[in-house]
Amino acid sequence: MTMTILETPPQDWRAIVAHKRKQLDAQIPPAWRLSEHFQASLPANGHLLAFNAVSKSNILTPEELDLTENYTAGQLLQRLAWGDISSEAVTTAFCKRAAVAQQLTSCLTEHFFDRALERARYLDDYLRREGRVVGPLHGLPVSLKDSFRVKGVDTSVGYVSFLSHGPAKTNAALVQMLLDLGAVLYVKTNVPQTMMTGDSDNNIYGRTLNPHNTHLTAGGSTGGEGALVALRGSILGVGTDIAGSIRIPALCCGVYGFKPTTTRIPFGGQSSGAMEGLPGIVPSAGPLAHSLDDLELFTATVLDASPWRYDSAATTAPWSTTKQHQHQQQLLTIGVLGECKDFPLHPPVQRALDNAVAALRKKGHRIIHLTPTSTTTTKTPSSSTTLALATDLAHANRLAFQYFTYGPGTDHISASGEPPVPSVAQAASPMFTGPFPIPMDAQTDPFTLIDALHSARQEYSDAWRDTFIENHLDIVLAPGAQNTAVEWDTFGWPPYTLVWNLVDYPACIIPYGVASKDLDPEPMVVEDGVQPSYHPEAVDGAPCAIQVIAPRFQDELCLAAAGIVDRDIRSY
Amino acid sequence: MTMTILETPPQDWRAIVAHKRKQLDAQIPPAWRLSEHFQASLPANGHLLAFNAVSKSNILTPEELDLTENYTAGQLLQRLAWGDISSEAVTTAFCKRAAVAQQLTSCLTEHFFDRALERARYLDDYLRREGRVVGPLHGLPVSLKDSFRVKGVDTSVGYVSFLSHGPAKTNAALVQMLLDLGAVLYVKTNVPQTMMTGDSDNNIYGRTLNPHNTHLTAGGSTGGEGALVALRGSILGVGTDIAGSIRIPALCCGVYGFKPTTTRIPFGGQSSGAMEGLPGIVPSAGPLAHSLDDLELFTATVLDASPWRYDSAATTAPWSTTKQHQHQQQLLTIGVLGECKDFPLHPPVQRALDNAVAALRKKGHRIIHLTPTSTTTTKTPSSSTTLALATDLAHANRLAFQYFTYGPGTDHISASGEPPVPSVAQAASPMFTGPFPIPMDAQTDPFTLIDALHSARQEYSDAWRDTFIENHLDIVLAPGAQNTAVEWDTFGWPPYTLVWNLVDYPACIIPYGVASKDLDPEPMVVEDGVQPSYHPEAVDGAPCAIQVIAPRFQDELCLAAAGIVDRDIRSY
Repeated sequence: MTMTILETPPQDWRAIVAHKRKQLDAQIPPAWRLSEHFQASLPANGHLLAFNAVSKSNILTPEELDLTENYTAGQLLQRLAWGDISSEAVTTAFCKRAAVAQQLTSCLTEHFFDRALERARYLDDYLRREGRVVGPLHGLPVSLKDSFRVKGVDTSVGYVSFLSHGPAKTNAALVQMLLDLGAVLYVKTNVPQTMMTGDSDNNIYGRTLNPHNTHLTAGGSTGGEGALVALRGSILGVGTDIAGSIRIPALCCGVYGFKPTTTRIPFGGQSSGAMEGLPGIVPSAGPLAHSLDDLELFTATVLDASPWRYDSAATTAPWSTTKQHQHQQQLLTIGVLGECKDFPLHPPVQRALDNAVAALRKKGHRIIHLTPTSTTTTKTPSSSTTLALATDLAHANRLAFQYFTYGPGTDHISASGEPPVPSVAQAASPMFTGPFPIPMDAQTDPFTLIDALHSARQEYSDAWRDTFIENHLDIVLAPGAQNTAVEWDTFGWPPYTLVWNLVDYPACIIPYGVASKDLDPEPMVVEDGVQPSYHPEAVDGAPCAIQVIAPRFQDELCLAAAGIVDRDIRSY
Repeated sequence: MTMTILETPPQDWRAIVAHKRKQLDAQIPPAWRLSEHFQASLPANGHLLAFNAVSKSNILTPEELDLTENYTAGQLLQRLAWGDISSEAVTTAFCKRAAVAQQLTSCLTEHFFDRALERARYLDDYLRREGRVVGPLHGLPVSLKDSFRVKGVDTSVGYVSFLSHGPAKTNAALVQMLLDLGAVLYVKTNVPQTMMTGDSDNNIYGRTLNPHNTHLTAGGSTGGEGALVALRGSILGVGTDIAGSIRIPALCCGVYGFKPTTTRIPFGGQSSGAMEGLPGIVPSAGPLAHSLDDLELFTATVLDASPWRYDSAATTAPWSTTKQHQHQQQLLTIGVLGECKDFPLHPPVQRALDNAVAALRKKGHRIIHLTPTSTTTTKTPSSSTTLALATDLAHANRLAFQYFTYGPGTDHISASGEPPVPSVAQAASPMFTGPFPIPMDAQTDPFTLIDALHSARQEYSDAWRDTFIENHLDIVLAPGAQNTAVEWDTFGWPPYTLVWNLVDYPACIIPYGVASKDLDPEPMVVEDGVQPSYHPEAVDGAPCAIQVIAPRFQDELCLAAAGIVDRDIRSY
């Protein structure tokens, strides 16, 4: 008979999560809690927005509903600066609405309403006392993806193992900027475990639901922002995007989202768990909002406030209004990147794109169809090598995937004993379309591999640059995804967003139209084992969207042109 | 008895070089050749500029001497645009002067005078016919470092093995831009074998001599430009700088030189032999000229002409005149980075810096001394960690050196059988000051090493950013090197320039004063085995210089502030 000495087992991950959830739940005041009666009244189809759930919850006063529903961020800032409304009133309204949104969709991670209200009162006092604002974002509540470190607040990005890091000791660069510009921070928002799936689901904060239809994903990785902004629990949210993580939640939740060129909005000081020094796809920080004006307000305000002072990696070009205004009255030359056969478009997505193109053509814009090629289905070589390479999204996605996977990884999931969530366990990839662009095996020299990846990426970037120049394009118009928001854990791989991360082009999502089982009644079965099929009943009423893309560093052009597109597609 | 079958031996490298030299010599018309009598009259002390060698050669007409000596590039461009002078006349003048400079200092690699004159005539015809210029550089001869590919011309960068590549099939991105902007290309200029030493010496084109004193180095790696511009064989030259390669020739040859932030001036399409995809110190392209106005003319003209259309890696921020003009009338806060004990300054260099500081203080600029620390000599920790790290140039240089050496290298020298030139054989490094910042051995995982290098570099960059912010600095004023131009093959390692490549800050060399055996009669012996000693007799009369540095991407501020400094140090 042998003695077995048991070590004290590490605290079970469930106990850590239970403790965390209890702490967060206690931070929602009783008066802001949804009644059981109200919860029972919510529609079974999960169409919270159509049901007008926030208003019906009776948590917000009429004035609070007005403040959160009827103004852009720019308009709120004007009223705040005039002293017409107090930051305390605005902050209270958005805190209450965020608390309601959280109870409806699990869109938040950390929330710190008390701290936000204290800050709002400080700003109100400052304005009264000094007769001027602290900065151009004076008094405005701004929500943040969980990855942004806020001093004194956890930054777990959904990893149970990261909860042991304790509250952040520093502010991320952008967080410090927003504070210096006068913003009020009040919530951080939910992400997928790993931040690399289209479902914002993790074992700490749970799954974020889509407020258009809670049976559908809110998108990821900035899914919490998508749901919160859609419910107007935030007027201006900040996300990050390395493959579509701003744009996918935007298109799933029917809001505007902008992925700027990397290094323009300071990215430093966030938590991700990734090895940052290896060459690869670099993430951007950017806004989600209810209008292009607010996307621009955020981007221009940050860029004009010397980001380099907060982040050594930030470029310092200020927002260039000349470049932007140049395009306000202009007819655009628009390259339309349609369906790539490797990644077939769901009928509602195709319809939204077709409608947009028809409307833009009618308005006099020049439309050039960039018909995608496919390495997997095209047998004959294309007549235009440059265009053929640029529009080979399957190649681009495999190259990007190789970047994501070539280096060593750290398993932050099993570090705590928690299991992977379903969307992580599925491990969607574009590898059903072909092999890695750069052959490699265990013996491949890392230096040679890195250099080869660099060359392949440069060649691909050159192809897009040449496509813009040869066709005299101002912008490219494309779908944001094959699909709308789809059923939980079926989003798959994001080919139509990731390509713009690979070439580092700014890209903007414009919500446009809705999925309709009446207009598109036929299901579409996708049999690649990765990408979602189209189920007309399931996604009926889900938002559709289009994507506007401009060349690298032409963020001003991207948003200005998106403004023209947004105007002209609505007057169809 | 055995039979030995000899393969045909590869062509001896000497034969290849002899063939190349013969081809180049034949391209200089007889009328542009220095007479033996003139060559015999050159002074033994090698002070070609003081001797007024170009003028005395009698190759150039008085009008050609006037065109090459009495105008800035900006002034020539105005006269060209007005049709006041023809491009053919200007190009002829600079071709002749470059041919003379070549015979005096071996400053050229490839030269194509016939092609240049044909281009000049085309531009003259265009202006007459169309009544307008092709672009803002219409008709101006611009010289280029050898690394820039020009279609139809060799790009060997001094490697015999690269001569087998044959003439370039494409133009480098910047070359195509310059042509589209209306420039005339006529020569490429000499570099060191490897482009990584302070002596522009190689086995193909020989050693470039310093026109101030042919017994001294012209600097490297853009040494050919340094000598050519100093002799006014070019009014505007373009170099590249990864460790000081624009700034060292500028300070050695007494001309202005500007290393912009990387990715602003398009760099793509050059030849270097380096592996471009690995993370490391990234080179910049930038101008050498006779005035700050011409440095700015070049930089602004290129940046305002959409570099992204030529190079996918170029940033697109145009030249920002608002940021620049903001500083025109202003008193600056100047951080003075003085001598770092690890890299002692030669007395003439120290004197130039002291004089500049005294003059600037007298003009009312705020001077803040950033006293450097030294990891090798300081025993007590500094009171300011940030400043201590930023000013630890030995650490910065070892980190940069580790970046230069960590990956695999290809031996382009022995590929042809040629021997290394003396400055390459010496293999100067900063390693006499301490070990690599990131410990590594044969077993070190490349990914971990790359990530650790990235972190160390980011920490160092943060230290400089914080130093600028905490001290409210507009610019830093520093020496450009420990020394002036020194005797052949003694330049050593470039600690005062390389630090700004490591953090990617724009930096500008302003010529200022001369070395004087009367003012600084005492020799200074440097015993580290790498860096040069001060020999008052040898460097008497050599140009001195100061360096002006601004934060990353603030190229506009760097040149605007350099303009203020340049003005105010002369009114001492």
